[in-house]
Amino acid sequence: MSMGKPMANYAAAKRVGDWVLMSGVVAVDPATRRAVASYEDIPEAARSALQGLGYATGQMSVDIFEAPIVAQSWFVLERIRALAAEHGGSMADVVKLVQYFRRLDHYPAYNRVRGLFYPDAPPVSTVVEVSNFLPGDNVWVEVEATMYLPAAR
Amino acid sequence: MSMGKPMANYAAAKRVGDWVLMSGVVAVDPATRRAVASYEDIPEAARSALQGLGYATGQMSVDIFEAPIVAQSWFVLERIRALAAEHGGSMADVVKLVQYFRRLDHYPAYNRVRGLFYPDAPPVSTVVEVSNFLPGDNVWVEVEATMYLPAAR
Amino acid sequence: MSMGKPMANYAAAKRVGDWVLMSGVVAVDPATRRAVASYEDIPEAARSALQGLGYATGQMSVDIFEAPIVAQSWFVLERIRALAAEHGGSMADVVKLVQYFRRLDHYPAYNRVRGLFYPDAPPVSTVVEVSNFLPGDNVWVEVEATMYLPAAR
Amino acid sequence: MSMGKPMANYAAAKRVGDWVLMSGVVAVDPATRRAVASYEDIPEAARSALQGLGYATGQMSVDIFEAPIVAQSWFVLERIRALAAEHGGSMADVVKLVQYFRRLDHYPAYNRVRGLFYPDAPPVSTVVEVSNFLPGDNVWVEVEATMYLPAAR
Amino acid sequence: MSMGKPMANYAAAKRVGDWVLMSGVVAVDPATRRAVASYEDIPEAARSALQGLGYATGQMSVDIFEAPIVAQSWFVLERIRALAAEHGGSMADVVKLVQYFRRLDHYPAYNRVRGLFYPDAPPVSTVVEVSNFLPGDNVWVEVEATMYLPAAR
Amino acid sequence: MSMGKPMANYAAAKRVGDWVLMSGVVAVDPATRRAVASYEDIPEAARSALQGLGYATGQMSVDIFEAPIVAQSWFVLERIRALAAEHGGSMADVVKLVQYFRRLDHYPAYNRVRGLFYPDAPPVSTVVEVSNFLPGDNVWVEVEATMYLPAAR
Amino acid sequence: MSMGKPMANYAAAKRVGDWVLMSGVVAVDPATRRAVASYEDIPEAARSALQGLGYATGQMSVDIFEAPIVAQSWFVLERIRALAAEHGGSMADVVKLVQYFRRLDHYPAYNRVRGLFYPDAPPVSTVVEVSNFLPGDNVWVEVEATMYLPAAR
Amino acid sequence: MSMGKPMANYAAAKRVGDWVLMSGVVAVDPATRRAVASYEDIPEAARSALQGLGYATGQMSVDIFEAPIVAQSWFVLERIRALAAEHGGSMADVVKLVQYFRRLDHYPAYNRVRGLFYPDAPPVSTVVEVSNFLPGDNVWVEVEATMYLPAAR
Amino acid sequence: MSMGKPMANYAAAKRVGDWVLMSGVVAVDPATRRAVASYEDIPEAARSALQGLGYATGQMSVDIFEAPIVAQSWFVLERIRALAAEHGGSMADVVKLVQYFRRLDHYPAYNRVRGLFYPDAPPVSTVVEVSNFLPGDNVWVEVEATMYLPAAR
Amino acid sequence: MSMGKPMANYAAAKRVGDWVLMSGVVAVDPATRRAVASYEDIPEAARSALQGLGYATGQMSVDIFEAPIVAQSWFVLERIRALAAEHGGSMADVVKLVQYFRRLDHYPAYNRVRGLFYPDAPPVSTVVEVSNFLPGDNVWVEVEATMYLPAAR
Amino acid sequence: MSMGKPMANYAAAKRVGDWVLMSGVVAVDPATRRAVASYEDIPEAARSALQGLGYATGQMSVDIFEAPIVAQSWFVLERIRALAAEHGGSMADVVKLVQYFRRLDHYPAYNRVRGLFYPDAPPVSTVVEVSNFLPGDNVWVEVEATMYLPAAR
Amino acid sequence: MSMGKPMANYAAAKRVGDWVLMSGVVAVDPATRRAVASYEDIPEAARSALQGLGYATGQMSVDIFEAPIVAQSWFVLERIRALAAEHGGSMADVVKLVQYFRRLDHYPAYNRVRGLFYPDAPPVSTVVEVSNFLPGDNVWVEVEATMYLPAAR
Repeated sequence: MSMGKPMANYAAAKRVGDWVLMSGVVAVDPATRRAVASYEDIPEAARSALQGLGYATGQMSVDIFEAPIVAQSWFVLERIRALAAEHGGSMADVVKLVQYFRRLDHYPAYNRVRGLFYPDAPPVSTVVEVSNFLPGDNVWVEVEATMYLPAAR
Repeated sequence: MSMGKPMANYAAAKRVGDWVLMSGVVAVDPATRRAVASYEDIPEAARSALQGLGYATGQMSVDIFEAPIVAQSWFVLERIRALAAEHGGSMADVVKLVQYFRRLDHYPAYNRVRGLFYPDAPPVSTVVEVSNFLPGDNVWVEVEATMYLPAAR
Repeated sequence: MSMGKPMANYAAAKRVGDWVLMSGVVAVDPATRRAVASYEDIPEAARSALQGLGYATGQMSVDIFEAPIVAQSWFVLERIRALAAEHGGSMADVVKLVQYFRRLDHYPAYNRVRGLFYPDAPPVSTVVEVSNFLPGDNVWVEVEATMYLPAAR
Repeated sequence: MSMGKPMANYAAAKRVGDWVLMSGVVAVDPATRRAVASYEDIPEAARSALQGLGYATGQMSVDIFEAPIVAQSWFVLERIRALAAEHGGSMADVVKLVQYFRRLDHYPAYNRVRGLFYPDAPPVSTVVEVSNFLPGDNVWVEVEATMYLPAAR
Repeated sequence: MSMGKPMANYAAAKRVGDWVLMSGVVAVDPATRRAVASYEDIPEAARSALQGLGYATGQMSVDIFEAPIVAQSWFVLERIRALAAEHGGSMADVVKLVQYFRRLDHYPAYNRVRGLFYPDAPPVSTVVEVSNFLPGDNVWVEVEATMYLPAAR
Repeated sequence: MSMGKPMANYAAAKRVGDWVLMSGVVAVDPATRRAVASYEDIPEAARSALQGLGYATGQMSVDIFEAPIVAQSWFVLERIRALAAEHGGSMADVVKLVQYFRRLDHYPAYNRVRGLFYPDAPPVSTVVEVSNFLPGDNVWVEVEATMYLPAAR
Repeated sequence: MSMGKPMANYAAAKRVGDWVLMSGVVAVDPATRRAVASYEDIPEAARSALQGLGYATGQMSVDIFEAPIVAQSWFVLERIRALAAEHGGSMADVVKLVQYFRRLDHYPAYNRVRGLFYPDAPPVSTVVEVSNFLPGDNVWVEVEATMYLPAAR
Repeated sequence: MSMGKPMANYAAAKRVGDWVLMSGVVAVDPATRRAVASYEDIPEAARSALQGLGYATGQMSVDIFEAPIVAQSWFVLERIRALAAEHGGSMADVVKLVQYFRRLDHYPAYNRVRGLFYPDAPPVSTVVEVSNFLPGDNVWVEVEATMYLPAAR
Repeated sequence: MSMGKPMANYAAAKRVGDWVLMSGVVAVDPATRRAVASYEDIPEAARSALQGLGYATGQMSVDIFEAPIVAQSWFVLERIRALAAEHGGSMADVVKLVQYFRRLDHYPAYNRVRGLFYPDAPPVSTVVEVSNFLPGDNVWVEVEATMYLPAAR
Repeated sequence: MSMGKPMANYAAAKRVGDWVLMSGVVAVDPATRRAVASYEDIPEAARSALQGLGYATGQMSVDIFEAPIVAQSWFVLERIRALAAEHGGSMADVVKLVQYFRRLDHYPAYNRVRGLFYPDAPPVSTVVEVSNFLPGDNVWVEVEATMYLPAAR
Repeated sequence: MSMGKPMANYAAAKRVGDWVLMSGVVAVDPATRRAVASYEDIPEAARSALQGLGYATGQMSVDIFEAPIVAQSWFVLERIRALAAEHGGSMADVVKLVQYFRRLDHYPAYNRVRGLFYPDAPPVSTVVEVSNFLPGDNVWVEVEATMYLPAAR
Repeated sequence: MSMGKPMANYAAAKRVGDWVLMSGVVAVDPATRRAVASYEDIPEAARSALQGLGYATGQMSVDIFEAPIVAQSWFVLERIRALAAEHGGSMADVVKLVQYFRRLDHYPAYNRVRGLFYPDAPPVSTVVEVSNFLPGDNVWVEVEATMYLPAAR
């Protein structure tokens, strides 16, 4: 996970040689300490992008089923993008993703959202369904990213 | 997963620096889009090699239990070998494997098959039992490989 | 897993370029081939360190619940430290840990024990709950470590 | 259910007074007697319409999760439309739908597909999650429609 | 349900305009307040009719599995026939049935019994498997009937 | 369901000929978008009426078990009464109710509350236990009502 | 349990010093050896008292869910009252109750019935949900009472 | 099981003294290696005989539930009859059957089919419900037969 | 099973050569058609014999757990003894028993009861735990016996 | 339970002779009517004391697992201490505790917290794992205390 | 529990006024820290007494099912007797037992063993089935005893 | 079962006429009374034979999954061979085997081991999966053998 000191005792990302290794990221808001659960938990601009994919419909009985995985997917990938930026890279430099789901049928939604972050060449990708994530039951996806960013020589 | 464009939007393998990173590989035939399930789904030569291990007996009540994991193990490792070859390497250069199973008691069969691909020095290896894989319920093993192949300098 | 030849056919660790990759480590005693289960299974000095954290109380009804995860956490991290040392590094060079648990509520105990090994800067860290580990049901945690140790040039 | 004589002994629809009552419809192909399971099981034109909604992506790992409910939703509503047409009406005359699902989280996909059939005023609608449908485990949605079509007087 | 005042506070059937609406009917004997469970719970004449279908064999190990659904099916449809008759109609006027089962594999037996009540044109029919019925665990089928019986004008 | 536009794309009720058909109603507050869960979620006057039935005791350990079904029952039936009124009718014109529960042992409480709305002749009534309702796990009852209200001629 | 010699080998109650200790009481009729299951299993006067609480409605679909716990609650507390009386005390002297339930949502009904036995000051009370009681599956509540009745000095 | 060499390494039947012992028989077609699942999997003449019992109705929603056990029962008993004939005997000489089911409620259908093979004196018979059969999940019944056929002396 | 014609269509026992083969026997009373459940269901003399083993204590909370298996064990073995006698043999001639249980922890009680029938040399014996027996859920043990009784020559 | 009138109709504690009997205590805040769930729900001074035991770490992924039982343990024992004080006693006079848990592996944490309240001689103690407590699913421990406090004579 | 200091921090028994309160006792051997599991874990004299009840048969397949509860019952009651003796009393002074089981069908065996300790007047007795005991899964019974032993005055 | 007097009261084998009937055999060592669990539990010569089949690899993570069924299969068949020899026969005279498994996917391993005992003509064979065996949970296979060995005349 990666969302600020208080959550646990670990480094969100670390440069080693030509690489930036990142801890697994989950969608927990560092301010509220709650897992992202609805479209209200992400910025307006993100909602607009997701509406372009057909999500965030505003119909309660539709959004209640899709919002948790759609909004968490956005949150997690945006966090990875921000970590990459902090280290001087971009999503194109994040060459590999290991993606853990609690329900594999969440993959289609996640996959559409990931397309927003990788409009061009896709990364190397592993997907497995596991049992659970920190810090608890409302977290549906965790992504561990690896960035390759050779130092200018 | 790694079996051709149609399956999903990702790169099967990517060279970055001295490394070739590979996506997790599962045993889904790109032509039929079905998971490998029996010895008929793999080449004759592979069957012969597996018979040397005592598998592919031709007895229905025996093969029905062993074929799924044995044939998938062969398929997955052969796919990794092919990806390594496409990038100019061999199985000896594939230095690390993360191996996910849905049933850990599949490990003995997988381990025997892996011996066919690593006759000499074995790789670094992690094994965990998880819940499920893409694209669905008939997939029993996923392997994520990492190849180290320094560019000639 | 990583605890000596007899357990399985793989390499406990391997140097490739500037990196030392390690296989996933579980807490199985190579001598007895049993999973670590109580404070008697680890050295006296380790017990003292754990008592400093409030564990290893000597009260049977307390220790019976905590010993498996606390002692296994110590065993696994100590094994990683030893592997790092064998390759000329220290825990500070082990820059990334992927930690698999069978019960996420084991995390608090593991986290306290890990603090003994990383008194200063923590590593990059991923935590997921999975279903099971080799060689069987009494194993509660597996850790896969990556060390960065550039060769002196 | 409603897909031709052989399936069972009942009337697909019946005019009584100003009403046309319809039997519950499920997505079983009368020719093959199998439940609709993929986009190959519906006409090309339907696929195009569904692609406009973001479905039928051609990516195996995405379609495998979405195709069953999306294609069945289209099949069932199209069948109702055809039954309405047989009795001289249109979807606008189908004033009420009782919709049974086996998994409520199929509702978002169904709801998007239904929008294709009701571009204007929506019908009266009841949704419940139940256990199962005839003829068996691969059927995910059943819809019972009621048409009001007063005889010209 | 429909078996007389004491069971609950509702109307067994009610004429509204050209229609007679009926409450859902279950096979509970108003006298004993117990669910119909064996062929002894229905009249001799009914048993004869069911023997014509191959049921009510008199072999204990056969009847014990079939009697509950076969006898309840007869009881429920006979009750609907009687309600129809009370309002001046016949089974031919009962144009629609919604049939709820707790186990869908009860459908074949029910279907044979229904054939006794609809020798000619079958009704409009919906079948779903649900979880339970009033008043409790020994009730296996509930049928809600709708009769169309235009007043003579 | 029926609680205002945002919830989903359907008509809460529709007059067709002499009938007013209504969508299934669940107890979700359109303002908060949360399911009714306690006596605080319904008006003071409703609480008084329910106290007359022995509910809304003010004892926490009692109300916690009864409030969800009692308050939802009131909310749903009141909503149906309001829809009837919007179309010029009253509860006496609502001649049929199909009542879906997730736990049949909620029926006694629902039945007492319904008595408040039908002091005189009860409606035609069907009761089944199903698995779930939109929009989610805290909804315990759904009611689909049918009103007969012949236009003055 | 406490309902007469044949049930088991123990003392229903025993005076020790200023106290009368009682064995746990369950609602099994010593005559029939069956657990109390309906309002027919308790005296007419008890039924009247329970009707004053809104129970024992005479509607089968209501009573079938409530009768087991309501009638057992009355039976158990009445048995405790009788034991108290045998030793010269009354319910006011029964100062503490430990109440075991198999389903905690039975508490509201039990609580109303207990109010009949403690119109004034309530006793000290502990409530826990456990798995089962002697002599078997139809027993829903067990109560262990303690009476303080100082001998006149 | 007994359906030809390829299935496994055993003898389908063996004469020893006055007896012919037979291996347990399951309904797997030696040609396709698939379990019998529908009426299409057995000969036309068999279908006719089963229709005389009221099975093989041609209605999809009926046959889908009954065909597996009915067709397997016929297949298994016909195979035993053929084995008996190969050794010079008839069904009348098959004096004992041990019949294993996975669902005991399959017994009524099996029993009717067996009547076709034993029109006169029935055999000695044992019936138990067990967990599973070779070669897998679609097999519903296994029968072990014993024939007594004294050699002419 | 073996308790008279009406239960099912089979032979309770049959002499073939020097052997008497018996069908599996369960404890169902042919008169009442109910499974033996308590000590009241067997003769007084049997109860006395069982009291000699420490069973049939007359304490309700003890007997309720033990009576089903103890009384059924006696009933089944007595029935086998009677069948042996009908064919001119005794328990000493019943040389082999296959004993099926639904709960293996019933074995100690059964074993003590069997000692009453085999005071001297015990038979050949096989014991397995299976899922269920005809005719249903209250049957706990089934025994298949084989008698060797050479005809006098 | 014991937290003020509104929760239910019982006495939190009662002096009888030389004893003060207490009702079972659970950690529900009388003000908010919610179960104690985090360290924010208890006073600052309590948090400090718990930090001395190694709890209340401030790391989200640690506290989320430990806070519920640690904070509830403190709350419950503090409530007992307060009740003892109201009757003129101290924790040393509370001679016996019956402690019910929903998960026995909560015992180590509870045991450490109890040490804060019994620095000297420990009480008589019974521990059992049960199913649930009033008022619901977020309550993890219930403690029933008995105080011996002879009146000064 | 009560088996010596190391197990946990509590008092095995404590005299308060005329009473000796005891902690709940489980059958854990203080020397080995293992739960009593077989007749080898108790003294020879105890085995003889149990043989008088028909237990400790020496037949492996019998003893394996009965030994755990029979031997634990003896161990626990003997421990209570010893605690009573330490405080100057006897089993006749232990006037009340609260007996917790994990499986209620262990009651008959326990009850016979208890008879050895209470040859004359039985105690006041409460029996409930709960989920688990300290220190873990091999403990089947816990007994909490209360002794009344007025000080000589 | 068949492993010496102490296990239970039955005959391991018995000659009757031309036959030797055997009791079901399980792999329990009569000396230790424990089920065979690893290759250490069988003789060195057996291990060598099994290594010829590819088992007994010496790799812990492989053997841990395979040893229980492989070693038990050998033990059971060897015991049958010894019983046959005691009665003057050989494995070729053991003409029929009924083989019970707790997990059918153990069949491939068992089948390979059986080949060691039947190098030539295989026996008549029945295979079923059941729930459990005496004396308990670590037993995976039970085999009941029948030998035909006509006395020399």
